[in-house]
Amino acid sequence: MAKLKEFENKPIGTSIGLDEFINSLSFNENGLIPAIAQDYETREVLMLAWMDKQCILNTLREGRVCYFSRSRQTYWRKGEESGHTQIMKKMNIDCDGDSILLLVEQEGPACHTNRQTCFYFQVNEDTVSINSEPVN
Amino acid sequence: MAKLKEFENKPIGTSIGLDEFINSLSFNENGLIPAIAQDYETREVLMLAWMDKQCILNTLREGRVCYFSRSRQTYWRKGEESGHTQIMKKMNIDCDGDSILLLVEQEGPACHTNRQTCFYFQVNEDTVSINSEPVN
Repeated sequence: MAKLKEFENKPIGTSIGLDEFINSLSFNENGLIPAIAQDYETREVLMLAWMDKQCILNTLREGRVCYFSRSRQTYWRKGEESGHTQIMKKMNIDCDGDSILLLVEQEGPACHTNRQTCFYFQVNEDTVSINSEPVN
Repeated sequence: MAKLKEFENKPIGTSIGLDEFINSLSFNENGLIPAIAQDYETREVLMLAWMDKQCILNTLREGRVCYFSRSRQTYWRKGEESGHTQIMKKMNIDCDGDSILLLVEQEGPACHTNRQTCFYFQVNEDTVSINSEPVN
């Protein structure tokens, strides 16, 4: 983060080596960083999951999004069981180097409930309601 | 999360009391949950920050987004120093109850560097480049 601060005032197009950049990221105490997946075409935010350094490298090399499952403590290529793969179209990282935005081509629904997005609980004034149905 | 699992197969429109729902969220060991801010109109993802239970309640009550600053260990109404406020238009929560999506009306740039979005580092094959300029 301190490292990335140096780049704040640099002009558009300024570039940094990938290794140097990745080594400047702020991973949490478990070596993870939150990653947002957004549909490349519809711009819908689909899910939030977690990546470690290896996930970032795998995703860049394979072109298919690889997360780290905190519950299973293992690498997880999105769609490896469901077939609902995510192809990475763009990867962006934020000013503080502590979160990732993935623009993805999503095959089928992103959510394990078969809904298009995981964000299907809508908060109202006094209640929370389900705002979408599983896709058939 | 176990609690929210019960709702996975419920039909669209099913509603849950707000208090019950908030008490079912999976806050991390510091009582926090990641919150994504997305521009309500342009659909651009602007930033990721953190909320505790009180931030969620403040945001719902005040209509203005309130985060928790991990570095300063304090509540932080977005824009209170910069004037770049975020008005909450919608709040959605994901299937696992461990991340929040805020649709916001963003006044001015969202990033502390005066760029529209915090996600201005674009990852390329071997480099990372800055893809936007600060707004004047």
